[in-house]
Amino acid sequence: MVEPIFARVKDQKAIDVVCAELESKYSNRFTKGEALREQHGHTTTWLENQVPDGVVFAHSAEEVSDIVKLCAECNVPVIPFGTGSSLEGHLNAPYGGISIDVSQMNEILDVYAEDLSCRVGAGVTRKQLNDYLRDTGLFFPIDPGADASIGGMAATRASGTNAVRYGTMKDNVLAMTVVMPDGAIVRTASRAKKSSAGYDLTRLIVGSEGTLGIICDVTLKLSGIPQAIAGGICNFPDLESACNAVILTIQCGIPIARIELLDPLQVKACNDYSNLNLKERPTLFVEFHGSENGVSEQSQLFSEIVADCGGEDFQWTTKAEERTALWTARHDAYWAAHALRPGAKGLSTDVCVPISRLAECVMATQADLDEFGFIAPIVGHVGDGNFHVLLLLDPEKPEEHENAEIFLERLALRAIEMGGTCTGEHGVGQGKMKYMSYEYGAGLGVMAAIKQAIDPQNIMNPGKILPKTD
Amino acid sequence: MVEPIFARVKDQKAIDVVCAELESKYSNRFTKGEALREQHGHTTTWLENQVPDGVVFAHSAEEVSDIVKLCAECNVPVIPFGTGSSLEGHLNAPYGGISIDVSQMNEILDVYAEDLSCRVGAGVTRKQLNDYLRDTGLFFPIDPGADASIGGMAATRASGTNAVRYGTMKDNVLAMTVVMPDGAIVRTASRAKKSSAGYDLTRLIVGSEGTLGIICDVTLKLSGIPQAIAGGICNFPDLESACNAVILTIQCGIPIARIELLDPLQVKACNDYSNLNLKERPTLFVEFHGSENGVSEQSQLFSEIVADCGGEDFQWTTKAEERTALWTARHDAYWAAHALRPGAKGLSTDVCVPISRLAECVMATQADLDEFGFIAPIVGHVGDGNFHVLLLLDPEKPEEHENAEIFLERLALRAIEMGGTCTGEHGVGQGKMKYMSYEYGAGLGVMAAIKQAIDPQNIMNPGKILPKTD
Repeated sequence: MVEPIFARVKDQKAIDVVCAELESKYSNRFTKGEALREQHGHTTTWLENQVPDGVVFAHSAEEVSDIVKLCAECNVPVIPFGTGSSLEGHLNAPYGGISIDVSQMNEILDVYAEDLSCRVGAGVTRKQLNDYLRDTGLFFPIDPGADASIGGMAATRASGTNAVRYGTMKDNVLAMTVVMPDGAIVRTASRAKKSSAGYDLTRLIVGSEGTLGIICDVTLKLSGIPQAIAGGICNFPDLESACNAVILTIQCGIPIARIELLDPLQVKACNDYSNLNLKERPTLFVEFHGSENGVSEQSQLFSEIVADCGGEDFQWTTKAEERTALWTARHDAYWAAHALRPGAKGLSTDVCVPISRLAECVMATQADLDEFGFIAPIVGHVGDGNFHVLLLLDPEKPEEHENAEIFLERLALRAIEMGGTCTGEHGVGQGKMKYMSYEYGAGLGVMAAIKQAIDPQNIMNPGKILPKTD
Repeated sequence: MVEPIFARVKDQKAIDVVCAELESKYSNRFTKGEALREQHGHTTTWLENQVPDGVVFAHSAEEVSDIVKLCAECNVPVIPFGTGSSLEGHLNAPYGGISIDVSQMNEILDVYAEDLSCRVGAGVTRKQLNDYLRDTGLFFPIDPGADASIGGMAATRASGTNAVRYGTMKDNVLAMTVVMPDGAIVRTASRAKKSSAGYDLTRLIVGSEGTLGIICDVTLKLSGIPQAIAGGICNFPDLESACNAVILTIQCGIPIARIELLDPLQVKACNDYSNLNLKERPTLFVEFHGSENGVSEQSQLFSEIVADCGGEDFQWTTKAEERTALWTARHDAYWAAHALRPGAKGLSTDVCVPISRLAECVMATQADLDEFGFIAPIVGHVGDGNFHVLLLLDPEKPEEHENAEIFLERLALRAIEMGGTCTGEHGVGQGKMKYMSYEYGAGLGVMAAIKQAIDPQNIMNPGKILPKTD
């Protein structure tokens, strides 16, 4: 295979040509205004903001194709933009270029209720979709926390709290319309539930972070809204006991819909922020979906596991208002954690390990946090072996940031050593490129060959996923 | 993107060089014997047998790499072989070359019971794996009927009767060790349950039918053996009612494990072959997995749906021996169907459509069968919208084969027109290459670019999936 080179230099002249052309074609849907450009580079990331040279709001796959063709002709980078909630610098423009904002491609195009699927514009957000679906008895289960766009969620292979039962975006995208680097508009698959017809283009594009093509619409699997939902919480004397309870739950085949771990620091943060009164111990938030009898049986079984593992205070309820209060607190965990250290900037990272290694990985991570003296709560989608650390750093203290870099590297390499991955759901972006070779070895060469073949000019979100090779 | 060319000519001299080298290296694990070569080209397919020039039995990824490197050096095709149960000419050697038989790489390498996963050699068969797992309380759910190798099942993205609940190979392979066309040994992913780290190499290789690399070992997701299993059958006045019952079942969120449709002709065949006494009407075989209460509740709910749709005689049982008799009959359907026309050769094909179009697609297919006067039962994994037709053809009557070609094309194009795919689980092989352009349009160019980038010499199972472009 050819050894590809993924570095670029910024070509301002070419960019200016493209901007002039876009301005004349898209008038007020194109902007070079600084505020908007900054907002399209800047995301909820700890990385430096590298702003694009212009932002264009596309309204159709045909327009995206038109813009990409123009950029390809001039060899100018394109960076797709949904809602801007990515965490690893996915939207930065290190070589300049055009941010293609698809947020106005937000139409719900089809709902195939009989097939439990739908087709939506890439700019539709998950909350918008679920509001729309409410009367159909169906819902879209993937919930990464932020109200992200479906296109962005597909591009980063998002997952979140429901993934333990409903899978990730790789499991819930049936097909996509994608504009390729040469402007070709490609349908990745049919809307059949399964297929053995050739290479899996859908799952090649899911998780490719805009480096292979721009997602314009997405055909999604939907799920039936469960007849009953039960939720509850319980706490454990130590982390290992909590993890053991999770392992047993999965092994017993309880089809748990959510099982979330909060460490004592995060529980304290939630107590303060959401005015709760939880014991500040390792805590599991759980949710069961099914029939009335089913969720009752699942809750009962789970309560036995909790007791066997030394857990306490397990209470569950099917009452919507009580569950909502609970999960609102869980969803607010990110903001609650920020309140632990006012003025600090949050650096959110995630890894994923085989569940058998989870307790060990979290404990080693906790030891690192203690060593550096970080204020950094841990929360996890533990049914998948996936957990997050939110480092709260003082922007005025560069040494904290230096230590954070050391901490991040230790965490990523530890997860990989344990048979896991440097990111379970945030994606690679710019932040995790440096671990890719360690995680994949020769496999990274295969990824590079694919990128080189599909995007030989390297105009599609350059400087992401694949480390520079110059 | 470069327009790749996938045609080859057979280079007997180069092949002879490779054969001599393999003979000296692998002695009695290499053969040019005609019987074995024929068996490695010939599968349960209706296509002409194109035998490889030699067969080598590999024992490790390192050996596979060594063989592939030799073949790459001499520009000689390699065709991976598991158990030979593929249906669309996947194992044929149209340009000659070496069949790499991995059936002796049949060790169960690791069972990670806590993680509900395992790692097995590509030659392990699904029954071997499930026998091995019996005492762990875990099982591997994918069941395509044949006792195929796990490597072959991954290569063709196999599924089968359990897929409606447990997914297909794309959902149950966590990672693989793959030998690439340049001999590089690549790990496609970690064994974490999920990851957002870069391109999904696992799902690129799943379904690639040996055209991108040779699968040497596979890390699989396992499932807990359900506490209780209930099974049953029911019949319907017409096909549409049966399909409606399936749609309602899926829509109600009943987590049905199997839901199989047999048309009246197939029921007759099963009655004759398995000594049953079923009504010769459209019939559903169903199975429920869960707790004792759970399967009882599911069965009850399903029985209401059956009644609402005009179905009759629904009886269900959790007794293993009764269920086994039922499912043995279903599994023997293929052989039972052959007995409908002694001396005939079976041509098995499959398509998959959105479930809302299933009844329409099956009925139009039935009309075609009637038009041509074929004896051809229909069975389907209808929960996925996937069904099979087994044409029983007289090998002495070429006109039957000509009509079969017309029938197959109509069927494939109809499925694609209805938003489906030309194959739900058999794969493309040689038999369905001609429909790929119709199904994917510009997407086929993306597949070709990937193939060209990863296998620039086109030595990996050439003449499959991607139509010749010369």
